[in-house]
Amino acid sequence: MNTQLSPEQISEKLKSFFVEHLPITQFMGLEVESYDGEALILTAPLEPNINDKQTAFGGSLYNTAVMACWGMVYLKTQEKGIDCNQVVTEGSMKYNAPVDGRIRAICHAPSEEELVGFFEHFERKGKARISLEAAIYNDTSVMKIDPQSEPKIKPSVKFSGQYAILKSQK
Amino acid sequence: MNTQLSPEQISEKLKSFFVEHLPITQFMGLEVESYDGEALILTAPLEPNINDKQTAFGGSLYNTAVMACWGMVYLKTQEKGIDCNQVVTEGSMKYNAPVDGRIRAICHAPSEEELVGFFEHFERKGKARISLEAAIYNDTSVMKIDPQSEPKIKPSVKFSGQYAILKSQK
Repeated sequence: MNTQLSPEQISEKLKSFFVEHLPITQFMGLEVESYDGEALILTAPLEPNINDKQTAFGGSLYNTAVMACWGMVYLKTQEKGIDCNQVVTEGSMKYNAPVDGRIRAICHAPSEEELVGFFEHFERKGKARISLEAAIYNDTSVMKIDPQSEPKIKPSVKFSGQYAILKSQK
Repeated sequence: MNTQLSPEQISEKLKSFFVEHLPITQFMGLEVESYDGEALILTAPLEPNINDKQTAFGGSLYNTAVMACWGMVYLKTQEKGIDCNQVVTEGSMKYNAPVDGRIRAICHAPSEEELVGFFEHFERKGKARISLEAAIYNDTSVMKIDPQSEPKIKPSVKFSGQYAILKSQK
């Protein structure tokens, strides 16, 4: 890390970003539940995100997942002190089961090796791409994606996305 | 069609559905722009759906596209007089270019043949699946998806989704 900020301080930046730049996140009630440098969890209450079946709207599930991965890239570039534009280029959802309570999307940090390659490519080319995954469990105690436990606790929703960072025009 | 309702009257049902059941669509300002029985266009203003780059948020683009295809299935089941539960099971987005004005997602009806197979399967098994596509153009004059004109007018966003209908539990 090029910065002295703690994961908590870094995640404050993401909260501010939502408030300042993405009005729909405020309607959704989207918040950072936790970030420890390795896993980012975004959360939103069911009520503003409800559908006709009294479960979470598929679009709100997507928004939470796409922003969990977006947020992970944001936090990692912030930690590295990189000023860049960041966009989502692809996103895919698989809805396996309904979510009937609070929405929580979990995204894990890329490996150190992957991050080094990502940032090196950015330094050389002025742009870089990375793939990330998020999962939404219909169980508010789950704190990480754990493929080992999948037979017991399956994610209700799986998301995978591609993100690009580009040299800031400023 | 099993009904005497016109496409305009049928599309009123979709508008009411949004108002009654999907609060996030009201924040987004999501509306039915047009439905002629063959193409459904959903639209939303940029302002509530804006991002940090003053273009449309990727999540709002997804919501508009996923609901255009969902809406198409809804309208076709309404036209057929079928009472069912309807869910999205998969959704994929490709973001090719930013959308810097009003969001408009276009979805075309499945072919008659495809619809017949879809409804026959539903009658026999009590459930059926269908794939649909939507496109978002950064040009508010586009009224249909036309692969022939793609070299000239490319969609900014392409969406494909899978939808399931299930016998109503009521």
